[in-house]
Amino acid sequence: MSEDFFSSRWSERPEGVRDSAALPAGFRLAGIACGVKDPEGTTPDLGLVLSDVAGGVSAARFCDSGVLAAPVVLTRERCDLRGLRAVVANSGNANAATGEAGIAEAARVQEAAARALGLAPHEVAVASTGVIGVLLPGERVAAAMPALASALRADAGDFAVAIRTTDVLEKHTSLGVDLPSGSIKISAQCKGAGMISPRFATMLCFVQTDAALRAERADRLLGAALERSFDRVSVDGQLSTNDTVILMANGASGVSVEPGGEDERLLGEALDALLRQLALLMVADGEGARRIGCVRVRGGEHGAAERVARAVGNSPLVKAALFGADPNWGRVAQAIGAALPGSAPLAFEIAIEGVTVARDGAAAAHDSAALRQAVARDEVLYEIGLPGDGAPVELFFSDLSYDYVKINAEYTT
Amino acid sequence: MSEDFFSSRWSERPEGVRDSAALPAGFRLAGIACGVKDPEGTTPDLGLVLSDVAGGVSAARFCDSGVLAAPVVLTRERCDLRGLRAVVANSGNANAATGEAGIAEAARVQEAAARALGLAPHEVAVASTGVIGVLLPGERVAAAMPALASALRADAGDFAVAIRTTDVLEKHTSLGVDLPSGSIKISAQCKGAGMISPRFATMLCFVQTDAALRAERADRLLGAALERSFDRVSVDGQLSTNDTVILMANGASGVSVEPGGEDERLLGEALDALLRQLALLMVADGEGARRIGCVRVRGGEHGAAERVARAVGNSPLVKAALFGADPNWGRVAQAIGAALPGSAPLAFEIAIEGVTVARDGAAAAHDSAALRQAVARDEVLYEIGLPGDGAPVELFFSDLSYDYVKINAEYTT
Repeated sequence: MSEDFFSSRWSERPEGVRDSAALPAGFRLAGIACGVKDPEGTTPDLGLVLSDVAGGVSAARFCDSGVLAAPVVLTRERCDLRGLRAVVANSGNANAATGEAGIAEAARVQEAAARALGLAPHEVAVASTGVIGVLLPGERVAAAMPALASALRADAGDFAVAIRTTDVLEKHTSLGVDLPSGSIKISAQCKGAGMISPRFATMLCFVQTDAALRAERADRLLGAALERSFDRVSVDGQLSTNDTVILMANGASGVSVEPGGEDERLLGEALDALLRQLALLMVADGEGARRIGCVRVRGGEHGAAERVARAVGNSPLVKAALFGADPNWGRVAQAIGAALPGSAPLAFEIAIEGVTVARDGAAAAHDSAALRQAVARDEVLYEIGLPGDGAPVELFFSDLSYDYVKINAEYTT
Repeated sequence: MSEDFFSSRWSERPEGVRDSAALPAGFRLAGIACGVKDPEGTTPDLGLVLSDVAGGVSAARFCDSGVLAAPVVLTRERCDLRGLRAVVANSGNANAATGEAGIAEAARVQEAAARALGLAPHEVAVASTGVIGVLLPGERVAAAMPALASALRADAGDFAVAIRTTDVLEKHTSLGVDLPSGSIKISAQCKGAGMISPRFATMLCFVQTDAALRAERADRLLGAALERSFDRVSVDGQLSTNDTVILMANGASGVSVEPGGEDERLLGEALDALLRQLALLMVADGEGARRIGCVRVRGGEHGAAERVARAVGNSPLVKAALFGADPNWGRVAQAIGAALPGSAPLAFEIAIEGVTVARDGAAAAHDSAALRQAVARDEVLYEIGLPGDGAPVELFFSDLSYDYVKINAEYTT
């Protein structure tokens, strides 16, 4: 990518982290068209991540919806989540709400991929994204496995395209990280633009590193990074059925990252920054989005800050005002009140881009020209103060635009 | 109104309930322009309800937001809610998030109205709706009281216009009800189109009857009717700061409704039907709305049905699909799953207008042409079955349209 990957003012490139033209050693990816998205098979819709190296580790997280897609169920139940070697992912069909038949189709894909790659099925995760309630044509996908395997190369571009649905922005990169024990690489490919509300997150994201990690530390690093990235974004407050994040660490760099040391701290920092920027890109790419909001809430007690942040970030009124660059902070006040029933009178504060518009629960005199300028920026910060001393929380969110309605009213996505 | 007031297929005119050209006896209403909405004072923005008869009773309900508007605080704290004689309501300014100054302005209006009407301040409720965070110009409103009092007449038309904000549909009527003990009348005027998510409801609604009621029974009748009407609708899931519903019963018909009898049952039925149809009108008038959805959930346990109904009715994906007449029931499945984390695999059922699209948690074969026709109707019914035997719940909701975005992005409302 030509511009800086860390393009948001809310993400920072950690020291010692460089862009890398190459993927982590020992990983190859592929993306081809297999006819899920269109019967002619001209639109890329099938991707593969492979570690060529045995003995690596992995970690995974999934959404906690009551309606879990077949690939999520299959991967959770039949894979060795700490020893994955490959991931097959398709777009155009979520294979969700498809019952036992859906599980059977997902298993068919998993088995065909294992066969084509010379792996055991439990080493191959499957992931799907697209329309809900339609059975995945597993036979067609399975038949494409030899072609998919032949397309593997040390580049993520085709894979990233193949897992897109309504995504517009590119959401993948490869980074070099200088650790005290040596240099390693870390790369990630991510998709997600609608039905995005984290718990942990609502999307697909695949992360590879050639560092050598212990499985339980990979799991902990991934969990911590998710809490600071995909957990903190929302496009539309809508939890998906298919969320999957998989981290694979194959050790091909020869650099071993030991628990608790400086290597691990720096790797964790790089992983955090990488996933945070990808999460921000997902919000910026929120279906039809023009602007990103960031709400920061301090104070409150017993989870009040989290409830307020979600209420503000998911409010269609706040989001429509953000889209229209409307300085109407009354919508923020409304969302705060709705999140904390029975708390009136509530001595809240609101500042938008540093302009304090409400203090002690009431309107505060402010420079309205400065406010109008502030809300017209690409990224708008809402700071909310509540009485009490809970831990501060942060949430990034998309606006609500005509195009969000268009995308979700006029197409079966 | 020329067409039947009970225009929705989800509301029914009870037996013995007739349209009435006249208001209940002993009530007069007024609506004038006083310069809150525009400085020239040409747009109606101030309304008054008065019972000319002493000795009546009243009942009231308010929203439970943590950010309560000054008129709500003042009316709750300083009025005799069981003995209200008058209500002053303005549009164009919510007088919310305006602190002590807002309370003082609301009190100024209350006192001026009491003076103009020869009442005590605690007999006069105040209500406001409009932009949040701007102090009500109480002096200007108070100065208009003599003109407002002079405009009182036995007709609700001007009042209903004066309390509108983004409303398009008329939401007021007067009904005659034949009770065993005699005929009484009941009328109501209501406003609400955006920031509508009931808890109990998010709007202003004023109800008058000339039946004689005991105060505690008026309170109970109102509470029960709200649970079956405004409690069951949502335009955008956004609780307001200003919701107010006030029922006044002045006994001017000479018909006394005793607790527990047939009179009370029939009056309750009429009140239920009236508020239910007004609630449906509010949904139909949801900002920018084209279609109404009704979600009915049966089964589930521990509040699961209520959570699912709210998740479906407030999902921007479900609402955008309703707007676009998109038969994509996957969005309904997604919302069900999101509402019930950790419950997978969940054996849910979905039927849309009688077409069963999912059974046992998986897609069911169905007539897709019939489904496409069904979702293009003005009113679309979604029936959801969950395992378990909780009480059934119902929620009415608006769609999500370009105009909702337009109204809320391009104007400070």
